[in-house]
Amino acid sequence: MAPPSAIEVSAVSDTTGVTLPNPLTAPVQSNDIYGRRKKTDRAQWGTAAPANTANFRLRSHDHKPKAKSWQHYFSHEAQIRKGNSLKNAAKYLSTPGIISLGGGLPSSEYFPFEELSLKVPTVGKFSETETKKSGVVVTAGKHDLAENKSTYDISTAFNYGQGAGAAQMLRWVTEHTEMVHDPPYEDWRCTMSIGSTSGLDMALRLLARPGDMMLSEEYTFSAAVETARPMGVRVCGVPIDAEGLLPEAMDDTLSNWDVNARGSRKPHLLYTVPTGQNPTGATQGTERRRALYKVCQKHDIYIVEDEPYYFLQMQPYTGPNAPDVPPPKSHAGFLKSLVPSLLSMDTDGRVMRLDSFSKVIAPGSRIGWLTASAEVIDKYQKHADVSTQNPSGISQLVLFKLLDEHWGHAGYLDWLIYIRMEYTKRRDTILASCAKHLPREVMSWNPPMAGMFHWMQVDFRKHPDYPAKSIETIEEEIFLKVIDHGTLVMRGSWFYADVEESHDTLFFRATYAAAPAEKIDEGIRRLGEAVREEFGLVKANGGLGSSS
Amino acid sequence: MAPPSAIEVSAVSDTTGVTLPNPLTAPVQSNDIYGRRKKTDRAQWGTAAPANTANFRLRSHDHKPKAKSWQHYFSHEAQIRKGNSLKNAAKYLSTPGIISLGGGLPSSEYFPFEELSLKVPTVGKFSETETKKSGVVVTAGKHDLAENKSTYDISTAFNYGQGAGAAQMLRWVTEHTEMVHDPPYEDWRCTMSIGSTSGLDMALRLLARPGDMMLSEEYTFSAAVETARPMGVRVCGVPIDAEGLLPEAMDDTLSNWDVNARGSRKPHLLYTVPTGQNPTGATQGTERRRALYKVCQKHDIYIVEDEPYYFLQMQPYTGPNAPDVPPPKSHAGFLKSLVPSLLSMDTDGRVMRLDSFSKVIAPGSRIGWLTASAEVIDKYQKHADVSTQNPSGISQLVLFKLLDEHWGHAGYLDWLIYIRMEYTKRRDTILASCAKHLPREVMSWNPPMAGMFHWMQVDFRKHPDYPAKSIETIEEEIFLKVIDHGTLVMRGSWFYADVEESHDTLFFRATYAAAPAEKIDEGIRRLGEAVREEFGLVKANGGLGSSS
Repeated sequence: MAPPSAIEVSAVSDTTGVTLPNPLTAPVQSNDIYGRRKKTDRAQWGTAAPANTANFRLRSHDHKPKAKSWQHYFSHEAQIRKGNSLKNAAKYLSTPGIISLGGGLPSSEYFPFEELSLKVPTVGKFSETETKKSGVVVTAGKHDLAENKSTYDISTAFNYGQGAGAAQMLRWVTEHTEMVHDPPYEDWRCTMSIGSTSGLDMALRLLARPGDMMLSEEYTFSAAVETARPMGVRVCGVPIDAEGLLPEAMDDTLSNWDVNARGSRKPHLLYTVPTGQNPTGATQGTERRRALYKVCQKHDIYIVEDEPYYFLQMQPYTGPNAPDVPPPKSHAGFLKSLVPSLLSMDTDGRVMRLDSFSKVIAPGSRIGWLTASAEVIDKYQKHADVSTQNPSGISQLVLFKLLDEHWGHAGYLDWLIYIRMEYTKRRDTILASCAKHLPREVMSWNPPMAGMFHWMQVDFRKHPDYPAKSIETIEEEIFLKVIDHGTLVMRGSWFYADVEESHDTLFFRATYAAAPAEKIDEGIRRLGEAVREEFGLVKANGGLGSSS
Repeated sequence: MAPPSAIEVSAVSDTTGVTLPNPLTAPVQSNDIYGRRKKTDRAQWGTAAPANTANFRLRSHDHKPKAKSWQHYFSHEAQIRKGNSLKNAAKYLSTPGIISLGGGLPSSEYFPFEELSLKVPTVGKFSETETKKSGVVVTAGKHDLAENKSTYDISTAFNYGQGAGAAQMLRWVTEHTEMVHDPPYEDWRCTMSIGSTSGLDMALRLLARPGDMMLSEEYTFSAAVETARPMGVRVCGVPIDAEGLLPEAMDDTLSNWDVNARGSRKPHLLYTVPTGQNPTGATQGTERRRALYKVCQKHDIYIVEDEPYYFLQMQPYTGPNAPDVPPPKSHAGFLKSLVPSLLSMDTDGRVMRLDSFSKVIAPGSRIGWLTASAEVIDKYQKHADVSTQNPSGISQLVLFKLLDEHWGHAGYLDWLIYIRMEYTKRRDTILASCAKHLPREVMSWNPPMAGMFHWMQVDFRKHPDYPAKSIETIEEEIFLKVIDHGTLVMRGSWFYADVEESHDTLFFRATYAAAPAEKIDEGIRRLGEAVREEFGLVKANGGLGSSS
């Protein structure tokens, strides 16, 4: 059973084993965090206790500017939202000797759970096979907190919590955020979400009004569009290239905004996935991000930076015949290899960053977190208190045992490096298959640098039925032909930011995240076969693909 | 490790032990469920697989009337909400031999969990002390489903899911709902929620429009008011008595609705907590419910029945000097002892019932479920798909291992009987303390029959400062005096349905759910002392309470 302090658990010696792709030599800054933690109020670990998250930041941020206020963008709903009156009564609980007959919290006596155990990987031995052999069991007891065995336990985690999440996990995500992004303004805060899908839903209810338009990549996450539309918020697609959103195009759109033609006031909100964007797989480079932030400053745009794939940034793609780039040599080297986030450039506090454990730990945890200015976070938390409440306490306890107590920040970075190398392999597999199987005459693509998606363009102008048939009809016919051949890929048109706009591109999205390598290759082979058949193409090494 | 089928686990022999308060003699209808389960599509147990929940109902409902349509009450948001386009692509996954490069689901290979174990009570030995001794360990493996060890496992539960929840838990709650409520219309369905707080938030976004008023008890759950107000929905308080909401008063309010005076169209929505209402503790009797349903039919009111305390119905209160009523003798007897739900009377399909595991298993699970007509459930699910998504898969797996595989429906009913007897003891404790310590001259109460709350009226007219000071000022002074004396109780005014209405009652709410018996008694003693001091009363057996 792991001790409550994780200092020794994820020591450097644990992470230099032969099985790890990265021999870690540099000083492990991430492990220092535990030693530097401030003495904070013990009461915050208790049931449904509020925490002052500013205390979880280790560096001083006092010298930085304060965030701007975004009140003028708040929705009517957010403007009139007040705090929870019952939670206000919690302040009296600090009265010495007080007996609370106040809050309607059930006694943990009636939680039918005595112990929760997890078998999880040892740092550096992360694969399923290794975990079977060398995994360790971490255990949470029912009253570990009262018995001084841990700062978190079943009786606390399984009870009610704050909309902001438990202090135990809030501390961890705040430390992680400070280490990775170090936002350049004073009053940044973190709060937990029940995942970024809900995060966006709540962000829109906070920052948009019916009739508004929101900017986004012209191909964008379809659930974002489907979240926004029922609120009366339409999405205005901004042109993209291989590096994603084009700042000049966005500037142009905003500078020439015609309220009457658009049927909407000038947008004040940008929803963007800067890294490994869904569906295009595009990653904005550092300069692109700087330019984008500047345009947002010029037009006073508030940014929702949705970054589920941030830690699915892969090794540089060297092509099939060049040697692989060696993995990062240290945690510092790894963190330096990542494209800086918009949050890390955010001097104004105009970014709400959505982070999530879904792609790097497990989607079923339904745990993510937000980073934004205190003013915005406060409104978000107040909404959470009367809607989503806290993320599942069972999930929070599971993540706490793994991340805070067992792996520590250092072990988690090792895990992220492991994931990086695994996704690099998967990406290289799909690219090799595409090079082998797809008809270059009508299909083209860029190697993705991050995320889960490979985005393939089809030159519909060469289709025998063009221009007699529309792009969408040709797309549908290819899609069904690919199904006939035994592969499912997603249609690009499902990701239109604005279906009412006319489009002159045709894409398909394939993921390399899910299937094993041999299935990916066979899937892409079938795709190539189907596209050749549709276009009446002959394969370079002879013959039409066999028909279905 | 428990076998995947729970038939034998919660057999009758397990539940007749001496430690159980109820010797079960009647045929255990709840255990029959496992044997009667229909052969359903295996594919529904897979990752993020949709389920046809109608298949989980064991009885035939074909002879019942269909639910009415509520489209005319749907919000603008709900009217224009469409399905998730990507989830629609899932239908192609049933094509034999298909390779999916479609959905962006991470591979379970990268979930760093090999096994999850829980130590939980054996049926009939439910206390913490007994669980320490005789609790059993149930375990979920990573690939139990593929290895035919269970229908649910880590690789499935920890991945993405449907907004409706996992089929594994949906089946369980559907069976439970059919057993307990057997709704009297054909097309009722269940769907999971992330708890009833979110359930109400989503229900209002589905069924209310800005400017609407919603009916509720005149003292109501404050979070309900705080959820509604930012959406522009005000709450119209309906007079209550010891049995809760008064149907005639509601009829009267609706029959004489003055749009101009109220500034709102006639309400079409009722939010009610019929059992152990928060804060009043009132429970509507069977006849009261029938009358209420009839008034709702008359004015075509849609009902949100929020029932977190339904299974906190207690034994009849016999007073301090009469013998206790013996516990239910069988599961059938237990179920019969419960006040019938509005859902069980709902021939029109006009009830959305919110159930929750928060008060009977653990609030931290953030799992509840809804029962309503297929039309309403469909809209709710579509919203969940782009906001809350499914409840935590980790929570769902934990509940599944406990409820479906280990306890079974029969064991769960035994647990509920155990909880009933425990809450009965707690309720009797607080009533004995009140009888002993509170000044009857100015305080009065009814014994609660369900829930967690004791609601105590104070006769403010006898307060020395009345009428010079307002009710709310007197209430605040008493509240602070009680704090001075070392007890926290909640102010009744925090639960006003409509703060803008004038009120002529003064209450305090105390909970008997959380503190141990001796603390409850001391807390009530201090309360009595403080109230006496405020009112300048002398204690019957001499002297003023000692001042703080």
